[in-house]
Amino acid sequence: MAPALRYPVRAVPLAFLGAIAVATAVLMLPASRAGEGHAPFLTALFTATSAVCVTGLNVTDTPEYWSTFGHVVITVATQIGGYGIMTLSMLLALLVSQRLRLRNRLLLQAESSGLSLGNVRLLLIRGALIILVCETLIALVLTGRLWGAYDYPPGRALWYGVFHAVQAFNNCGFAIFDNSLTGFVGDWWICLPITLGVIGGSIGFPVIFELQRQWRQPSRWSVQTRLTVGGSITLLVVGFVAMLAIEWTNVRTFGPLNVPTKVLAAFVQGAMPRSGGFNSVDYSLMHDETIAITIGLMFVGGGSASTAGGIKVTTFFLLAFVIWAEIRGEPDVVIGRRRIPTATQRQAITIALIGVAIAVMGTLLLLTFTRGLRFHWALFEVVSAFATAGLSSGVTGDLPAAGQVTLIVLMYVGRLGTILAASAIALNTRHRLYRYPEERPIVG
Amino acid sequence: MAPALRYPVRAVPLAFLGAIAVATAVLMLPASRAGEGHAPFLTALFTATSAVCVTGLNVTDTPEYWSTFGHVVITVATQIGGYGIMTLSMLLALLVSQRLRLRNRLLLQAESSGLSLGNVRLLLIRGALIILVCETLIALVLTGRLWGAYDYPPGRALWYGVFHAVQAFNNCGFAIFDNSLTGFVGDWWICLPITLGVIGGSIGFPVIFELQRQWRQPSRWSVQTRLTVGGSITLLVVGFVAMLAIEWTNVRTFGPLNVPTKVLAAFVQGAMPRSGGFNSVDYSLMHDETIAITIGLMFVGGGSASTAGGIKVTTFFLLAFVIWAEIRGEPDVVIGRRRIPTATQRQAITIALIGVAIAVMGTLLLLTFTRGLRFHWALFEVVSAFATAGLSSGVTGDLPAAGQVTLIVLMYVGRLGTILAASAIALNTRHRLYRYPEERPIVG
Ligand SMILES: [K+]
Ligand SMILES: [K+]
Repeated sequence: MAPALRYPVRAVPLAFLGAIAVATAVLMLPASRAGEGHAPFLTALFTATSAVCVTGLNVTDTPEYWSTFGHVVITVATQIGGYGIMTLSMLLALLVSQRLRLRNRLLLQAESSGLSLGNVRLLLIRGALIILVCETLIALVLTGRLWGAYDYPPGRALWYGVFHAVQAFNNCGFAIFDNSLTGFVGDWWICLPITLGVIGGSIGFPVIFELQRQWRQPSRWSVQTRLTVGGSITLLVVGFVAMLAIEWTNVRTFGPLNVPTKVLAAFVQGAMPRSGGFNSVDYSLMHDETIAITIGLMFVGGGSASTAGGIKVTTFFLLAFVIWAEIRGEPDVVIGRRRIPTATQRQAITIALIGVAIAVMGTLLLLTFTRGLRFHWALFEVVSAFATAGLSSGVTGDLPAAGQVTLIVLMYVGRLGTILAASAIALNTRHRLYRYPEERPIVG
Repeated sequence: MAPALRYPVRAVPLAFLGAIAVATAVLMLPASRAGEGHAPFLTALFTATSAVCVTGLNVTDTPEYWSTFGHVVITVATQIGGYGIMTLSMLLALLVSQRLRLRNRLLLQAESSGLSLGNVRLLLIRGALIILVCETLIALVLTGRLWGAYDYPPGRALWYGVFHAVQAFNNCGFAIFDNSLTGFVGDWWICLPITLGVIGGSIGFPVIFELQRQWRQPSRWSVQTRLTVGGSITLLVVGFVAMLAIEWTNVRTFGPLNVPTKVLAAFVQGAMPRSGGFNSVDYSLMHDETIAITIGLMFVGGGSASTAGGIKVTTFFLLAFVIWAEIRGEPDVVIGRRRIPTATQRQAITIALIGVAIAVMGTLLLLTFTRGLRFHWALFEVVSAFATAGLSSGVTGDLPAAGQVTLIVLMYVGRLGTILAASAIALNTRHRLYRYPEERPIVG
């Protein structure tokens, strides 16, 4: 790897470790806890990791266990983690792209990511402004609704509005309502802004910046933007339709709801795997098919350089295009009149298969540490942690210490691993002076 | 695709359909059934498909439900299916390789598969001889043991020896003992020949022929043989160690067994996912971690052009080498001083990801058709059918008709799909007169 890039690739995980350490220490102060004494180390570490890695899994009842000061700490940790991951992964991607462009400058590539490192400061400020505007809008709608329809006093309504707006846009998923959003399952003014915030945060700065510039000319969109927008819409539709089709008659979930509420609940629950961690219906009561689809959606996750996790929408749909080209016998993988380099295809495969391996290993570890845990809830919890989705069947708090440590490691690795692996792999290219002769084993 | 190859690629699935139809019809005769009347269509179709596709899943109690004539029908169907799949997939692979070599003859490739289509008849006879020798050896050991140690009359001992020898070497898994091999969990003379037969059948003719020629010179082995031998040993060790480590103290499985029996049982149960369908310990009583590992082993399966199923050992370990090269930043994927063509890498990825997609879709279908079935047993059953492994938690017979049809389709698609897809993909190459400019989206 180029020496100039080793530093950022190493600095990012250290910065996140530092933020987690500080948040853990502050959450261990007696002031952070609502009850007597202070939070135990593991509880504070889990909550801090979950907040900084914008996951939203929790081992405590968030509204009951932490004081208002604790909730402020969670908010700050979430905002730092979310802003950090969005900006740092964007900068890393730009560094990589700039570096590759310099190396290949004689090849006259038509790179059209549209962004450059020219003015890093401007990028950081633009990013912060976008976050501020989006979160303010969400907070205003929530505050107005809680004040107007639920008789919250104005100050409390504002605080609840701000707290959940930050959680939503950063794709974290802590809630200080009782039982996440289940009390508001039919309330469009609560569920819709939070869900739209989650979707907005899951797009990522490179695509947002490009859409700001040319959202009216889809024909000029980069591959990045095409895959992210098309892929996200596809996954939202899949989630929505699956929820409606499978849960419609489930008496423990959607069954008792009226039709408009069913539609809203399907939209919310179908979008949350993108990777917000809220729920307005209890996932643990859903059918196994819905859980299986939700696990798949969480694994794919959101856009690159966003607050969402998973292997990323671009990675997943790029692989779909690779397979499609292979089936049709096309020599090149072409997306919107642009050819995808073989190196990028191999990166996508590597990221996806490493993701599968981590999910499998994590599930085996969690099952080993937690006898009696059902297989699909272990898988659900592990993919939720790895993809920093934050959805849970409710077992997180009951896991033994080793199980909680497994999830902590998965959240950290899932948050930083795919981004850093992608950068490191893209930069780490050796050159050989000789090549071996070809041989073609039988596959399949 | 070349017109000369369209015919075999289409003829193979039709031949299997024909064999399944005939076996179904014969199994529906009253003479095939032990009890009154004749077997219902779906039961006969399931059993015929399971035998011809050398899976071994069953919806009936094989020793009780079918007459001796029925058992003979199952034996013949298994042998035709096993011989058919070994020879046809070898011939298809040779056709593909010859075709590619003709197309690329100016490239002076160092293809060293060591086989050619020169004398198809000789290949077919050699294959039949190998099967005959291996099955005779297994049958002799089993017969001697059943006669000597279990007081079976000689005729009955011989018939039981032949039946299970055919089932073992063809990687099918029907048993006419009560409850598969569970009555012989500590008997090395029964368990070992059957398990070695399963392993032998899972290697495949191309590798067996090459080993016959030069098993003493591993340095001259082809990539095919290196991947198959090294990969199979790796998977056998993984299965063995996982069984011992996880089940050692499980009071419902290995716990009550003495140490040598534990070792034998771990070897048998660890090797069966390769894809024999026997068991000497009940998989349904094992820990969830063991089941998860077994599902993974079944999904990978055995060697190409063998009686084993799955995505194949070569495909899986080829992908591991691709990822390893990617992580090290190597431009080429090199296995034993041979470079793997990009086209072959893409084929392996396509096969693996289509396999994942089929397993996921199958599991969703089975869960939809069978309310109350636990998620991981649905996955176990589906992967077992797709990989024609034949292991079961015992739920197969209780599935509703739609669930049984799902498994029938999975067995057929799993048996023929990967082989045909690999051939079709390898041959189906288009040429473009223009190429689009490159663009590099962010992945991960
Ligand atoms: K989240
Ligand atoms: K089998």
